[in-house]
Amino acid sequence: MSWQVRAGYDPNQIVSNGNKFLLANGYMGYRGTMEEYGAEQLAANTILGLYDQVGDKWREPVNAPNGLFFKLFDQATEISLLTLKPSFHQQTLDYQQGLHIRKTAFSYNENTITLQAERFLHMKRLHLMVDEITLAAEKPITLQVKIGIDTAVWDINGPHLINFETEDLADQIILSAKTQREHKNITVAQAVNASKLNCLKKEGQFAYYEVTLTPEPITFHIFATTFNANDCQNPKEAAKKELDVAFAMDFASLKKEHTQIWKGLWEKADVEIDGDSKAQEAIRYSLYHLLSIAPRHSDTVSIPARGLSGQTYKGAIFWDTEMFMLPFFMHVLPEVAKNILSYRIYTLPGALAKAKEYGFNGAFYAWESQELGQDATSDYNVVDVFTKRPMRTYFRDKQIHISGDIAYAFWQYYEYTKDLELLLKGGAQVIFECAKFYYSYAYYKVEKNRFELIDVIGPDEYHERVYNNAYTNKLAQKTMKIALDLWEMLAENAPEDLAEILTATELMEIDKEKFQRFYNEIYVPQPNDAEIIEQFDNYFSLEDVSVTAVRKRLLDDKEYWGGAYGVAADTQVIKQADVIFMLHLFGEDYTKSEIQKNWEYYEPRTEHGSSLSACIYALVACQFDNQDWAYPYFMKTATVDLTGETKQYAGTIYIGGTHPAANGGAWLAAIKGFGGLSVKNNQLQVTPKLPKSWQRLAFNTIFNGESYHIEIEAGKTPRISKKNNS
Amino acid sequence: MSWQVRAGYDPNQIVSNGNKFLLANGYMGYRGTMEEYGAEQLAANTILGLYDQVGDKWREPVNAPNGLFFKLFDQATEISLLTLKPSFHQQTLDYQQGLHIRKTAFSYNENTITLQAERFLHMKRLHLMVDEITLAAEKPITLQVKIGIDTAVWDINGPHLINFETEDLADQIILSAKTQREHKNITVAQAVNASKLNCLKKEGQFAYYEVTLTPEPITFHIFATTFNANDCQNPKEAAKKELDVAFAMDFASLKKEHTQIWKGLWEKADVEIDGDSKAQEAIRYSLYHLLSIAPRHSDTVSIPARGLSGQTYKGAIFWDTEMFMLPFFMHVLPEVAKNILSYRIYTLPGALAKAKEYGFNGAFYAWESQELGQDATSDYNVVDVFTKRPMRTYFRDKQIHISGDIAYAFWQYYEYTKDLELLLKGGAQVIFECAKFYYSYAYYKVEKNRFELIDVIGPDEYHERVYNNAYTNKLAQKTMKIALDLWEMLAENAPEDLAEILTATELMEIDKEKFQRFYNEIYVPQPNDAEIIEQFDNYFSLEDVSVTAVRKRLLDDKEYWGGAYGVAADTQVIKQADVIFMLHLFGEDYTKSEIQKNWEYYEPRTEHGSSLSACIYALVACQFDNQDWAYPYFMKTATVDLTGETKQYAGTIYIGGTHPAANGGAWLAAIKGFGGLSVKNNQLQVTPKLPKSWQRLAFNTIFNGESYHIEIEAGKTPRISKKNNS
Repeated sequence: MSWQVRAGYDPNQIVSNGNKFLLANGYMGYRGTMEEYGAEQLAANTILGLYDQVGDKWREPVNAPNGLFFKLFDQATEISLLTLKPSFHQQTLDYQQGLHIRKTAFSYNENTITLQAERFLHMKRLHLMVDEITLAAEKPITLQVKIGIDTAVWDINGPHLINFETEDLADQIILSAKTQREHKNITVAQAVNASKLNCLKKEGQFAYYEVTLTPEPITFHIFATTFNANDCQNPKEAAKKELDVAFAMDFASLKKEHTQIWKGLWEKADVEIDGDSKAQEAIRYSLYHLLSIAPRHSDTVSIPARGLSGQTYKGAIFWDTEMFMLPFFMHVLPEVAKNILSYRIYTLPGALAKAKEYGFNGAFYAWESQELGQDATSDYNVVDVFTKRPMRTYFRDKQIHISGDIAYAFWQYYEYTKDLELLLKGGAQVIFECAKFYYSYAYYKVEKNRFELIDVIGPDEYHERVYNNAYTNKLAQKTMKIALDLWEMLAENAPEDLAEILTATELMEIDKEKFQRFYNEIYVPQPNDAEIIEQFDNYFSLEDVSVTAVRKRLLDDKEYWGGAYGVAADTQVIKQADVIFMLHLFGEDYTKSEIQKNWEYYEPRTEHGSSLSACIYALVACQFDNQDWAYPYFMKTATVDLTGETKQYAGTIYIGGTHPAANGGAWLAAIKGFGGLSVKNNQLQVTPKLPKSWQRLAFNTIFNGESYHIEIEAGKTPRISKKNNS
Repeated sequence: MSWQVRAGYDPNQIVSNGNKFLLANGYMGYRGTMEEYGAEQLAANTILGLYDQVGDKWREPVNAPNGLFFKLFDQATEISLLTLKPSFHQQTLDYQQGLHIRKTAFSYNENTITLQAERFLHMKRLHLMVDEITLAAEKPITLQVKIGIDTAVWDINGPHLINFETEDLADQIILSAKTQREHKNITVAQAVNASKLNCLKKEGQFAYYEVTLTPEPITFHIFATTFNANDCQNPKEAAKKELDVAFAMDFASLKKEHTQIWKGLWEKADVEIDGDSKAQEAIRYSLYHLLSIAPRHSDTVSIPARGLSGQTYKGAIFWDTEMFMLPFFMHVLPEVAKNILSYRIYTLPGALAKAKEYGFNGAFYAWESQELGQDATSDYNVVDVFTKRPMRTYFRDKQIHISGDIAYAFWQYYEYTKDLELLLKGGAQVIFECAKFYYSYAYYKVEKNRFELIDVIGPDEYHERVYNNAYTNKLAQKTMKIALDLWEMLAENAPEDLAEILTATELMEIDKEKFQRFYNEIYVPQPNDAEIIEQFDNYFSLEDVSVTAVRKRLLDDKEYWGGAYGVAADTQVIKQADVIFMLHLFGEDYTKSEIQKNWEYYEPRTEHGSSLSACIYALVACQFDNQDWAYPYFMKTATVDLTGETKQYAGTIYIGGTHPAANGGAWLAAIKGFGGLSVKNNQLQVTPKLPKSWQRLAFNTIFNGESYHIEIEAGKTPRISKKNNS
């Protein structure tokens, strides 16, 4: 098994390879671009949690200047992939060790010049990037090298950095700048260890060297550190200091530290599949992305929808994190799960403010959450391709399931880990505030004696402003149940904390009755005579037409399917799993037959316009034991960032990047779907449903603070064995 | 004072003159076209209450074949306004007597041929049209005349008639047909009295004559009757019989009968204005239209939004009738008011069915009501000019104020006329069912202890799916009050009837408590600190921009301002009086200052995209004694069908016609606005606010069954004098 992905030379793949070969360490993400690439090739080092806004364009993450810039010249002639077609080129991601390796050979002046580079984003020294670059030539040739901190990086709504200042120390180049809006400092410090070579000259943040290449390789080691005002008081000092430390170590020592950490992560997180090498590679590649972007260092940040692969989706945190990524972390790296959830505690004030803005109580979490929980979602998130006018969308104000997603996630984490601390540190407040939000959002239909949640958007965003979305209503009901169970649990186990929490959330005993009434009287759409659950009121009366037929109605490839007048809006064609997602979360409340009937009903009506859809169809097919139906959806999910076959542009806006939610969905489908891992009566339980070709599935989990290894072999009884805690 | 409007020859005005010179008699409406005109000139005799649908096009009224067709030939050469530019042409509507007069002279072959015609739709014999045509020539010339029943009439979504059959009797031509969808019979019978001329030949439904014209005029009298299956079992027999009777009388006798009825109507309905001849003419011309289209013959029909001027707006009955036309009839022709309201009793089953269709109780009246109360409104009432796709509109399902409009109208009629009979004949049921509808439509906001009406469209249709529209909520509250007052009144005055009505409407004593609770707890937006009432929740947070600026954003003149993404949708620019309409109806609940402040706020934000808007701004300006502000809006309303300056086309669809709601609005502004007529303590009261130029305003009303004449002279105390009942 290779643990590697590779690509050759293909100028058309530069952007998608930038995602596919991404390096990240939870603090920053460095796109899989070549050392000589710049803004046009979307070179970027995206910094988690540092945002900026220019004018009235949307707010997005800041890409730091590129501290690993390296370019070769023969005087005025640039010798690079941007100017020459290489005689050989290979780009490799070693996702076992978190290494990016590049080998390129140029035929130039009847000579062959080779450039090799190996780089990593250090998994412990999170502000540090290192690149080892080795040059050689068949025949002697003297060339010039330009190394430095390049400010020409990808920027969607920039320029985000201003007030650039260069400090030229003997052995370091320091580039500092400020963000436009909030004037947050950022510094990139760089040092080069170029063996015995002397620097020819320095200009601003660039240093120039002259090298005479021979078959005997010459090696450059480039070290770059990045700090910003979110990290510490004085990013410049910190960057210099961290760089000094790294520079004092050699490349090999740093690499060893780095790969050791990866080794430890894989020991906890690896999933082994025998008999299906494609699935094995795909799941490991998916887990690589999750592990590389996981915030292990901070409990005030979380994972954006496109990970650390750039600025798309505003670098914002969506429900993706709780509903698709969290289960993986919760099962194998609970400390990361805790960090991710803590972000929602940290951003509770933002959610309270948003609810207030709309006239509601409690916590209405941001649909697109930035660092303080502010909602980055525009009221006009889509542009009309026909009129070029922004279209009023309702993601921000109507996608209320986000608060339930978060309450559900906290409780799911608590139930699996029994980690009371997170609840006491703010998690309980989050849950109570989410319950309060639904109570205040809901309307009561007097004649029907029921609460309803009307005018919402469910997971299927192609249908806006619907009434009683099954997923949303069921989740709101569950949120009330969680709040009630939490209340009771705290009353028993932590009565003093409860008293404080109730004071903080302004709850009284009478509110428990309100929650109870809501739980009893909230309308949740039930299966009809054909056992189908209607996605929302009157969904069944919409035109029943195939996805293909709807696609044919497009007048423009890029036009939005949803909104008021989109091609899908008045049809039963949906964007992604919605009722089916509900059946994934709440399968125990429905019969197998109901689950299957709904799968069969909604599957042909689903466009899968979101990368969040396929994994759920895989998972739910396993719930009614149909691995054959599940398998293609699993593979679609698990290979999403390998094939790159997702939407790359919306209008003229690049929306590509990595898909950590699909990566998490792949894990879910493998472990909860095919592996059949669940908890019954506070015990781990495994009821495997392996695809035909899988001979063995093995994985680990930490449950209730104890580590377990699970071995599933086709035809044998699965084994759950306790491990020593690591 | 002339009581006449005139037009000369202008081929560009053919369509608008068709409206301006409309003849009608409540049963049918004959457009102001020339005798020789056909389908292209929108010749039409629109029959009230007879509808047809072709394929999946919208259902619309049927235009009967043209029984007054008359065309002059010199062998193959047509001598008509369609082929020759006339040397003289004048078209006159005598709106005092309901006569259409036409004089045309053609210079032809060094001769002058003159054609005069005088026609009317008989105001008593409602199925009868008569035309007197007089021909002469300076020098003798022999010409041919073609007279008959022309089927080439205006049809938007036709052809509506099929199975044509001609019956050629000695003295009559009979043309019968059926409607496409429902196979309803219709017959037009025609007879010609052409002095001593012999018929040359007959072909189908046409007869040909040869005439030798001299300075001595030759006269043709054409009589045509129209009957359809809604009128009687055998329309053909009825048409023949009615034609026999008319033919036996002479033109002069029929005309005398006809003009006598007009005289009687004017005695009741005239409004005299001294000092402002333009206003005088405009108000009389407005009243002419109302009087001519009023259904005096039936209590199962009502007045469509474009009167009887054609097929536009589907020939449907809107709230226009109750809210804008009814007050005029209620004040001067209560029997017509009763007929109009009876239509809503007759169509109550349709309203009950519509409510049920949407899952509500009670009566949800059709937004565009056809003969059985079925809703002609399409869910896609507008076409996107950019994509040519139908746009989902919400007029049908969200414009819930229609039921309150109707309940309000019944009660207003009862309070003014004290006619209990209409309530006992079904009016009470209508009111109770409307109250039931609002009760079932409303949602209760538990945390705010109030009912809300959410997701509606108010009178301002540019803002769809809004919450708590002030007009709608106030009207729903009033509807409950009316239902409660009605309940009490019937308990006192007609307890046995009440018992029956409660059984029929499935109401019990407990429902009175429900109505009372709704009345007490329905949220009605109140004036804010600046005394402004917010049109709906969050209206004030919409972009505050001028109508002119919004108009400039149009990319296409014909694009719809409303809908989800229209130029007005996210701004404070509104289509028509909305809060201001509420202040017109419920002025007594607000201070003068509040009324004025709201007028000043909303007036510059109103596009007046509806002909229902200007009259309300006139009326409400009078409420705070500002006649100067009221006057231009009054004149705009009163001259709407004189100037023809309204939207004529929506996309490629002709939407013009007459504007009876504006006609009624003109009366309202004159009498209730400037005249200040009101009822206080069951007494007529007049607090005049005459415009500067008006020296005298005089009018009549029947109040509580008694006839009154009101004389208002500038600077004098107004006189209210009782008349002998006529």
